[in-house]
Amino acid sequence: MRRITIADIAREAGVSTGAVSYALNGRPGVSEETRARVVAVANQLGWEPSSAARSLSGAPTQTVGLVLARHPSTLGVESFYMQFIAGIESEFAPRSYALLLQVVPDLEAELETYRRWRAARRVDGVVLVDPRQDDPRIEVLSRPDALPAVVVGDSSLAGDLPNVWTDDAAAVRESVRYLYAAGHRRIARVGGLQELGHTHIRDVAFREEVESLGIEGPLERTDYTTGSGADATRRLLTSVDRPTAVVYDNDVMALAAMGVAAELGVRVPEDLSIIAWDDSPLCQATYPPLSALSHDVTSFGAHVARRLFDRIDGVRGGSFLDSTPTLRPRGTTSPVRA
Amino acid sequence: MRRITIADIAREAGVSTGAVSYALNGRPGVSEETRARVVAVANQLGWEPSSAARSLSGAPTQTVGLVLARHPSTLGVESFYMQFIAGIESEFAPRSYALLLQVVPDLEAELETYRRWRAARRVDGVVLVDPRQDDPRIEVLSRPDALPAVVVGDSSLAGDLPNVWTDDAAAVRESVRYLYAAGHRRIARVGGLQELGHTHIRDVAFREEVESLGIEGPLERTDYTTGSGADATRRLLTSVDRPTAVVYDNDVMALAAMGVAAELGVRVPEDLSIIAWDDSPLCQATYPPLSALSHDVTSFGAHVARRLFDRIDGVRGGSFLDSTPTLRPRGTTSPVRA
Repeated sequence: MRRITIADIAREAGVSTGAVSYALNGRPGVSEETRARVVAVANQLGWEPSSAARSLSGAPTQTVGLVLARHPSTLGVESFYMQFIAGIESEFAPRSYALLLQVVPDLEAELETYRRWRAARRVDGVVLVDPRQDDPRIEVLSRPDALPAVVVGDSSLAGDLPNVWTDDAAAVRESVRYLYAAGHRRIARVGGLQELGHTHIRDVAFREEVESLGIEGPLERTDYTTGSGADATRRLLTSVDRPTAVVYDNDVMALAAMGVAAELGVRVPEDLSIIAWDDSPLCQATYPPLSALSHDVTSFGAHVARRLFDRIDGVRGGSFLDSTPTLRPRGTTSPVRA
Repeated sequence: MRRITIADIAREAGVSTGAVSYALNGRPGVSEETRARVVAVANQLGWEPSSAARSLSGAPTQTVGLVLARHPSTLGVESFYMQFIAGIESEFAPRSYALLLQVVPDLEAELETYRRWRAARRVDGVVLVDPRQDDPRIEVLSRPDALPAVVVGDSSLAGDLPNVWTDDAAAVRESVRYLYAAGHRRIARVGGLQELGHTHIRDVAFREEVESLGIEGPLERTDYTTGSGADATRRLLTSVDRPTAVVYDNDVMALAAMGVAAELGVRVPEDLSIIAWDDSPLCQATYPPLSALSHDVTSFGAHVARRLFDRIDGVRGGSFLDSTPTLRPRGTTSPVRA
């Protein structure tokens, strides 16, 4: 069946297309009699308003945008984003919203995407992820005419935009103190991309905690891939004063670390304790199961979607703590051997 | 800056909004002099056509739709979809396209999404994934007025729609014959969701191959999660005639199987050979690294996007073999012990 247009309704009802538009949009300019006739004809023909037409009249696009400025090769490695997106989508069904997703190589391309989306009115709002120190996106999205946005990240990174965050600093401190209490005195951190704001927050919390405890805390840098996690682990385990415990910035690097330990004959957890971040089903599938800093990423995504709907509805600002990741000790952590 | 509308241009140029619309859309109905004046004013004011306006005039939405009818809890587990989406997106940048993503609970909701997208002209075409036997979506998307679609799956499942496929049957046969050549005579398959067409194709190829070789081939059913993969592995490893080799339908179930084997003291690969599907970075991060059926999922996604653009451009039908997954033996397969 061909799509029913306003012209079809106008012809059938014997009025102008302008009159049909007025009638169907509930605007003044046509008599009640004409409005009733137009609506009856529209229903009879099976007409439906298109999002394009509603968008032109300033109505919602029923679309939320998400730009991921990550290389395709690293996107598929972690389960974080798919779980996060599934969470966002879980809030969409009641509102008939959909997610417009764009994967771009860098921040410049991300800003260009926002510019195009805004000019073409393609989305009602955007979810900004991976905020950085002095992030140019925050400035752009803070302008009075910008797309409504919610920042996924710490309040210190979000400017005046509303943000939903997890208390990563508290989680880092808890994991270091837990390992210290179990007798560990050489605790390493294998962190993610340095330019990301949450990496910096975790780095600082880690440094402060090991310094306050007066212990050694080497830090290794990665790009979240299994390969970079394995490399960092090899460097740590072959160093002169090798750590007895390592905290990783995601799940797949912790998994890779178990492989490197096995390859070197380092026993987990007897010789080496391992803690993963972003607890995932993977962490419970390894042997022994991975101790992890756990938070519900799907529920986090849903929370972000609700705050963005608030923002789209005109609510301003606000900083919302979603959760503090909780340490779930499983089989890869143990007291240090006497 | 407020968005420039056709009304602004009309006011500035001293003509009706209708005349502006005719002039900017290159349609007859205004003099060349008026057209020139309108275009000059539009440029001066910094006007840009909105996708909404272009959509109303039948121009492309520059959007491709993807509906995933999967439970959020299973979506984040596998890396397949994020890699596949990253591949689709890799073809978008040159065309300024974006992906409209919707996660829905079931096929009925997926069909309703297509209906809404079509009625509201929200996408230029859709990528249909996880085709089933007698799939109602194929019939709906085969109607003359349906959204352009490309099926990701076997030709036998795609009706007359264009499809991009991987030769899963050949890959299953190769893995069974490889294990047979290494002396295995009890080879099990741990398969995914029964209702998915590619599961059926793999099941049939597996049954035919083990029958033609005259060996035992138990089949276990899962929902792709690590938990269901672990459960299936426990059933197999505690059965009276336990298999000496198992082929899994994804990577994370194979990983979970390594955990179950360790938990039971079954050595991999000495006592049990394991083959994963959808080779991923995970497969190379385990110890020993997982033998896997390998194909490039990101490149597969890119291929699908190119075929959908062809379809949107009016190319009809066509069945395109993307690749045959290749067996990459690593550390989890070995000859059966004498």
